[in-house]
Amino acid sequence: MREAGVNLVTVGVFAWALLEPAEGAYEFGWLDRVLDLVDDHGIKVDLATATASPPPWFSHAYPNSLPVDVDGRRLWPGSRQAYCPSSPDFRRAAVALTDALAGHYAGHPALALWHVSNEYGAHVPYCYCDTSAAAFRTWLEARYGNIAACNEAWATAFWSQTYGDWAQVLPPRATPAQINPAQALDFYRFSGDEHLACFRAERAVLRRHTPDVPVTTNFMVGHLKEIDYRPWGAEVDVVANDHYSRSATEADIAIDGALAGDITRGVSGGAPWLMMEQAPSAVNWLPRNYARRPGRLRLAALGHVARGADSALFFQWRASRAGAEKFHSALLPHAGTRSKLFTEAVGLGADLRRLGPVAGSRVQAQVAVLWDWPAWWALELDGRPSVDVGYLDQVQAWHRALWRRGITVDAVHPEADLGAYRLVLAPSLYLVGDAGATNIAHHVGRGGHLAVGFFSGIVDEHDAVRPGGYPGAFRDLLGVRVEEFFPLPAGHAVALSNGWRAGVWTEMLHPDGADTLATYLDGPLPGSPAVTRKASGDSLAWYLTTQLHPDSLADFLATVTARAGVTPAAHVPPGVEAVRRRHEPSGPSYLFLLNHTSTPAEVPAAGTDLLTGCAVVDNVTVPAGGVAVVGEA
Amino acid sequence: MREAGVNLVTVGVFAWALLEPAEGAYEFGWLDRVLDLVDDHGIKVDLATATASPPPWFSHAYPNSLPVDVDGRRLWPGSRQAYCPSSPDFRRAAVALTDALAGHYAGHPALALWHVSNEYGAHVPYCYCDTSAAAFRTWLEARYGNIAACNEAWATAFWSQTYGDWAQVLPPRATPAQINPAQALDFYRFSGDEHLACFRAERAVLRRHTPDVPVTTNFMVGHLKEIDYRPWGAEVDVVANDHYSRSATEADIAIDGALAGDITRGVSGGAPWLMMEQAPSAVNWLPRNYARRPGRLRLAALGHVARGADSALFFQWRASRAGAEKFHSALLPHAGTRSKLFTEAVGLGADLRRLGPVAGSRVQAQVAVLWDWPAWWALELDGRPSVDVGYLDQVQAWHRALWRRGITVDAVHPEADLGAYRLVLAPSLYLVGDAGATNIAHHVGRGGHLAVGFFSGIVDEHDAVRPGGYPGAFRDLLGVRVEEFFPLPAGHAVALSNGWRAGVWTEMLHPDGADTLATYLDGPLPGSPAVTRKASGDSLAWYLTTQLHPDSLADFLATVTARAGVTPAAHVPPGVEAVRRRHEPSGPSYLFLLNHTSTPAEVPAAGTDLLTGCAVVDNVTVPAGGVAVVGEA
Amino acid sequence: MREAGVNLVTVGVFAWALLEPAEGAYEFGWLDRVLDLVDDHGIKVDLATATASPPPWFSHAYPNSLPVDVDGRRLWPGSRQAYCPSSPDFRRAAVALTDALAGHYAGHPALALWHVSNEYGAHVPYCYCDTSAAAFRTWLEARYGNIAACNEAWATAFWSQTYGDWAQVLPPRATPAQINPAQALDFYRFSGDEHLACFRAERAVLRRHTPDVPVTTNFMVGHLKEIDYRPWGAEVDVVANDHYSRSATEADIAIDGALAGDITRGVSGGAPWLMMEQAPSAVNWLPRNYARRPGRLRLAALGHVARGADSALFFQWRASRAGAEKFHSALLPHAGTRSKLFTEAVGLGADLRRLGPVAGSRVQAQVAVLWDWPAWWALELDGRPSVDVGYLDQVQAWHRALWRRGITVDAVHPEADLGAYRLVLAPSLYLVGDAGATNIAHHVGRGGHLAVGFFSGIVDEHDAVRPGGYPGAFRDLLGVRVEEFFPLPAGHAVALSNGWRAGVWTEMLHPDGADTLATYLDGPLPGSPAVTRKASGDSLAWYLTTQLHPDSLADFLATVTARAGVTPAAHVPPGVEAVRRRHEPSGPSYLFLLNHTSTPAEVPAAGTDLLTGCAVVDNVTVPAGGVAVVGEA
Repeated sequence: MREAGVNLVTVGVFAWALLEPAEGAYEFGWLDRVLDLVDDHGIKVDLATATASPPPWFSHAYPNSLPVDVDGRRLWPGSRQAYCPSSPDFRRAAVALTDALAGHYAGHPALALWHVSNEYGAHVPYCYCDTSAAAFRTWLEARYGNIAACNEAWATAFWSQTYGDWAQVLPPRATPAQINPAQALDFYRFSGDEHLACFRAERAVLRRHTPDVPVTTNFMVGHLKEIDYRPWGAEVDVVANDHYSRSATEADIAIDGALAGDITRGVSGGAPWLMMEQAPSAVNWLPRNYARRPGRLRLAALGHVARGADSALFFQWRASRAGAEKFHSALLPHAGTRSKLFTEAVGLGADLRRLGPVAGSRVQAQVAVLWDWPAWWALELDGRPSVDVGYLDQVQAWHRALWRRGITVDAVHPEADLGAYRLVLAPSLYLVGDAGATNIAHHVGRGGHLAVGFFSGIVDEHDAVRPGGYPGAFRDLLGVRVEEFFPLPAGHAVALSNGWRAGVWTEMLHPDGADTLATYLDGPLPGSPAVTRKASGDSLAWYLTTQLHPDSLADFLATVTARAGVTPAAHVPPGVEAVRRRHEPSGPSYLFLLNHTSTPAEVPAAGTDLLTGCAVVDNVTVPAGGVAVVGEA
Repeated sequence: MREAGVNLVTVGVFAWALLEPAEGAYEFGWLDRVLDLVDDHGIKVDLATATASPPPWFSHAYPNSLPVDVDGRRLWPGSRQAYCPSSPDFRRAAVALTDALAGHYAGHPALALWHVSNEYGAHVPYCYCDTSAAAFRTWLEARYGNIAACNEAWATAFWSQTYGDWAQVLPPRATPAQINPAQALDFYRFSGDEHLACFRAERAVLRRHTPDVPVTTNFMVGHLKEIDYRPWGAEVDVVANDHYSRSATEADIAIDGALAGDITRGVSGGAPWLMMEQAPSAVNWLPRNYARRPGRLRLAALGHVARGADSALFFQWRASRAGAEKFHSALLPHAGTRSKLFTEAVGLGADLRRLGPVAGSRVQAQVAVLWDWPAWWALELDGRPSVDVGYLDQVQAWHRALWRRGITVDAVHPEADLGAYRLVLAPSLYLVGDAGATNIAHHVGRGGHLAVGFFSGIVDEHDAVRPGGYPGAFRDLLGVRVEEFFPLPAGHAVALSNGWRAGVWTEMLHPDGADTLATYLDGPLPGSPAVTRKASGDSLAWYLTTQLHPDSLADFLATVTARAGVTPAAHVPPGVEAVRRRHEPSGPSYLFLLNHTSTPAEVPAAGTDLLTGCAVVDNVTVPAGGVAVVGEA
Repeated sequence: MREAGVNLVTVGVFAWALLEPAEGAYEFGWLDRVLDLVDDHGIKVDLATATASPPPWFSHAYPNSLPVDVDGRRLWPGSRQAYCPSSPDFRRAAVALTDALAGHYAGHPALALWHVSNEYGAHVPYCYCDTSAAAFRTWLEARYGNIAACNEAWATAFWSQTYGDWAQVLPPRATPAQINPAQALDFYRFSGDEHLACFRAERAVLRRHTPDVPVTTNFMVGHLKEIDYRPWGAEVDVVANDHYSRSATEADIAIDGALAGDITRGVSGGAPWLMMEQAPSAVNWLPRNYARRPGRLRLAALGHVARGADSALFFQWRASRAGAEKFHSALLPHAGTRSKLFTEAVGLGADLRRLGPVAGSRVQAQVAVLWDWPAWWALELDGRPSVDVGYLDQVQAWHRALWRRGITVDAVHPEADLGAYRLVLAPSLYLVGDAGATNIAHHVGRGGHLAVGFFSGIVDEHDAVRPGGYPGAFRDLLGVRVEEFFPLPAGHAVALSNGWRAGVWTEMLHPDGADTLATYLDGPLPGSPAVTRKASGDSLAWYLTTQLHPDSLADFLATVTARAGVTPAAHVPPGVEAVRRRHEPSGPSYLFLLNHTSTPAEVPAAGTDLLTGCAVVDNVTVPAGGVAVVGEA
């Protein structure tokens, strides 16, 4: 670790069974030796509370703590995280372990950070057991006050679902037909709150023992749909994220990581965050687990730093010989230190030391893309017009087009302060609450630009359609009225009058204040408006009724950003990523240039490359697969 | 509604929770206001008994009434129709509500029709719970008298399944290997009878209160495989059907609707029936829900009228803002009355008034296609020679070929009176009972023509193979003996000696009185007979050993119908549908011409077009997507 | 049966319900008549103990005997084999029936062989119920002695799985994430032992009653992954196997059968075995069940004899009219004796009489392929680098390449005596224990040749990675060190420097004593070694880092076998199978030549064709689809 320049290690994440081998009997000796050892070598510890996976003795003693899935199937021990987050037994046991652990390690010189549990919701986001059902009822009662309000919010008049009292309410378990969507949304919200309650309970213990040690937990922003991380941002002392991608190529994984970083900043309010886990090379849980090509570890790791991370931690240091994850890559692989992986880890350690000045600076963006987990959940519930419309897919498509042009976006909540942005994007923001709609209207009202994708503004927070024509929340803002959706067959393309091509979705739209920029040439609605724009004051509000093909979407967004006066971080050739971080309000800035191609790239820049120490006058040459971090004057 | 000419509305289908918010406490006030309001405007009501979905209080009080699926998974409230049809608690509660409702609304001037429950079996056709198991045993005991007869019928000597007494018998729950097929068939029959018993129990109450108000329930003929509607025909005062299609194009949906109408008439004994539910445009439960093109609502709705419907009701009047079906189309969409949908609804209302004289007339057909739900079930059980053979697929293929030629078919049961038909078709009628086989032989005996598709006549009602060579029930009639089936790989085609092409299935056949019309050129049986015909007296009996490609099948059926002297309703170009209704025995007739193409069509006809009021001398021009209904002299 | 020359029939496999219609009440009369009848006609009986499927009365009286699947779903009666193999009630009842049956039939003149149960594990290989859980704990305690040893073997320190005592241990039931792989492997081993314990319990009873009647049970080698048949070989008096294939063509089914026979000999220690069940034509449990072409029954049946079978029994004699398997082919089909199937059965009976001298001879092989069921299980557990690597697939690919060249292989366990083989093959032998690794090293040490496929030698018996670089167990033997796996996307191909093509998998390899024979031209590791060879003394040890395309693999194995001095059984054209059996040590030999093509084949041979009685001088002409069995001088 010293060779690789490691200065922080996460320890004990799944160690409950070793720390508390029987109820109330603690064994810290082995962990004492670990912490003392790393401390002796100047390494700090991100100490886990180890509560993510209760030991066999716990499940055996408290079988009702085991989670139950939507089909009523109990999930058993044998892997990890087999607990119901609402289980009082689980919570009591987790708090007890945390208490003992924090009491023992308070004041240890290596202790730098508390790591509560692990990836909340990653394997059991929802539990449908009777304990969860009771907790859900309690949560609903607190939310709605009385059952009539809940009936109203859930529109239970439909399909004979009106509840007479709270006792009749259940989680959205397996049913004969489609579940009540508002019931589902509330259950997802409830489930996130239950995980958060687990976190808070441990945090309270930790703060009592070690008020000066920051507390965090590792999110899975970008990977996990089921947890709404927005309320978590204010609960942790520093936002930490794990990034794992299901993409197949290194370039796609990088773009996934860029979006995950952009969303993570939305959660942290723009503040730097910790990259807590990333894979050094292949993961082991995909159907095919591709290894990273030689020489590319630095590019991957610094991509997260470019997006606001002030760290580059990995899962994992050393590959396990046995168990379910033994084929997950590690900085120290089965083959040992004579390996590509360890060699590159050592190199990365040196690079990170050179980037010390970057720490604390903030990513600069002129564009915001609206991001909301409940909007994601709602858009993808059953019974929507087309399964080909995915929320993340839509956001990714827009984000990717801007990524390619070196334009950085912040992914922020619809109710966030939009004052800093020239342009706000809303790709398929199906669900938006009244406050969000008002906030967006305020952005336009003050001269901000807006671009909205199809199937946006349709429903309120309870998945109730905003009446009078689509896109309800944005109808006036966009100057259009849509009366019916016309989804397309899988793989079908339509042509637009301006030469663009599109697919998936079309709409029957009537302009009502907007100009028609392009119409459909074919498909079910030839001649009907496909792209519109409404000007009001300095603001332009664009609307897309269809899913443009990537090249057409790039054209669209090039126009939109140009009209909004948005500038890229740098003028980059295709495949080179550019992001700027700055010590705000007006301190030094750092231009990250990441070359994801296989040829060197010339990029205009000026300052000093922190990685090489070389001065950059007009241009910097970024090697194939390489990175430059230009400290700007 | 007045603007659209609505004269009948279905009310209260899923209103149980509002009508009886707590057990035995009824609230009719809101519904009184609805009925009084529509009555004030001259609209009649098809009043639902509202028993299709018990309210939350019911499931909470009687959890054993919740259904259980084949895997032992309990299905919960949260959507609709979550009840076990054999539950005594459910039946008692449903009857009690019906009793209160009928008592309250007996004599209301708007009450025109009772709508019992909703789409029986649509979401829970089968329940495998212990209550259902006990009811199944009771049903079996009534059917077989003693366990030995049941053992015989189920061939339980196979795989050590012989029952010692009734108590050992179970529903066909999840098993290690393939279930006993006769057990499965009887369970499906039992399940239908349980739903029918629920209907009868409510009907008895309704007839007591309102002996003069007709009683119906909405079938899902053409959509639902699991319910054998044949016994239901005589139980309702008027047959009512819902038509929903899984097809992607409007033309395919129309053909689906034509077949559904043809089968519905088989259930109603040829009498006119009610189109109770159809979608004005998109449904919301398909992966991709395609909207109907502008101007096509009339074509769709009158297609059902052509097939014998005396009504054109829709699901639904107004789109719900919330709940699971909010994206299902409605005559009054979210966008309101300024919409294509409402505009076309108004037009349709006017059209329907013009078609008043058609009501009560009957569809004319010279061809019968044999249709039987248990034959469908049996053909598609596990362990058949090829999964590529589907019963509905086969019937659809034959039906579609005749639809294209303007030849109307009645879809009737094998035991129905076939005296009116020149030609009887049996595409893959795998299961046929002795009475059906005798009935078909009688048809041939009296000079009727017959065409049989492969894998027909194989088993009796208990799925027991008729021995001595295939197609057992029709071997003598067809003059062939088949000794072995040779299914083909998916997508493989074989060529026949007469130029036809085919796939899916071939057979090793020996003529035994039949002439060979074509042999296989390739595939596993080159030189073996593929198509045969046996002449006896005036009758021709054709046999197809394979699944012909559509063009070849069209050729085959053109020859078969020509030889049988069958004539089309009109000589139509491709894509124009022709059906004739007549006031029997010799009253006026109405030629429906429905143009499913995008170009106008000229069709020979004479009389008056009821929709335009124009005289038709030699020909009528039917606009693209349009309809003509020629009242014939 | 006399006409077809039948001399042994299996009787009563699923007759429990008829033999014991109520607990303890036996009815043997009907079976007496069957046995007396066949005895009267000189036919012997393979008498089943009938315990494979308990009757309904049993499951009704002992519901806890029903099996439970990994998801906690109980499996019910209605098909077959619905019992938990660990159920004490089941075992007691099975032994009681066996006792009554053996007592009754001991001494019957027709009784030639006992057939215990049926295809152990075919439908319920694993039961996860509480009874099984308790039995698993008992088994583990016997295996490991104390819980600490079990924790060590299972690496339970990972993911907080350390057990405090045996009571906490469970079967690998459904879990939130990937199950502990060592737990899974032990559960699979335990499950096989439970089935074997059922067998032994019945065998003990049979030996007591009829010490001179051999006892067997029918394996499903080649079909069933879940049972490790290696320990069963020594438990049966004669190895018997059922062969069913999922392949679509007759040629592929034959190759499947060849491998199954080669593995079966590995289980029987090379001794002749019984072909207990094969399908005369189509099975009925595939999606598409292809019938055998006319004239091909002999080719199929004698293929098994060529591989060491001393019998050719079939499932089944007569097709059942009803039940789940009525469309499974039979020697006597529904069509009766006037049929292709019966005619060919009669011909085969005559052929088998002519092959009498072959009985007792042994198949000759110079090559061994290593085969191990736990290696299969382990390779295909979750969390491996690529789902495209299947164990059976890899073995099949190598086996098929040799089959095409007339080279016979024995499939033997890594710990088997390898002294007889010039060449040992290890395609993707992912798991190998220390004893196996030592045995293979000994083979190389004594001058034997070795060829190893990628992803071999990776883990020990507990799925723990052998550290220090892959392929751990064979690293020194092969003279290579692999540091990282680079699986390829589905369908991607890479080119090698010697012209070969490959896919699925590549590796980053460093030669460490081996010569590089070919490198990668493209893919993720251009320039890196792809194929290596280490010479030591007379031995060559080859290593393949990728999955070669079939032609390239054929080239590779042609070189490998040539360098090892391996000779084919005969020089055959493509599609002609050649195998030699010999009465050992130096008795007469029989060259089986099976022509799977559609044209006659000329093969060099000398002796007498037993089937035709003709002398073979230099060559024998094997007809298309025909067989020659040349008795060699």
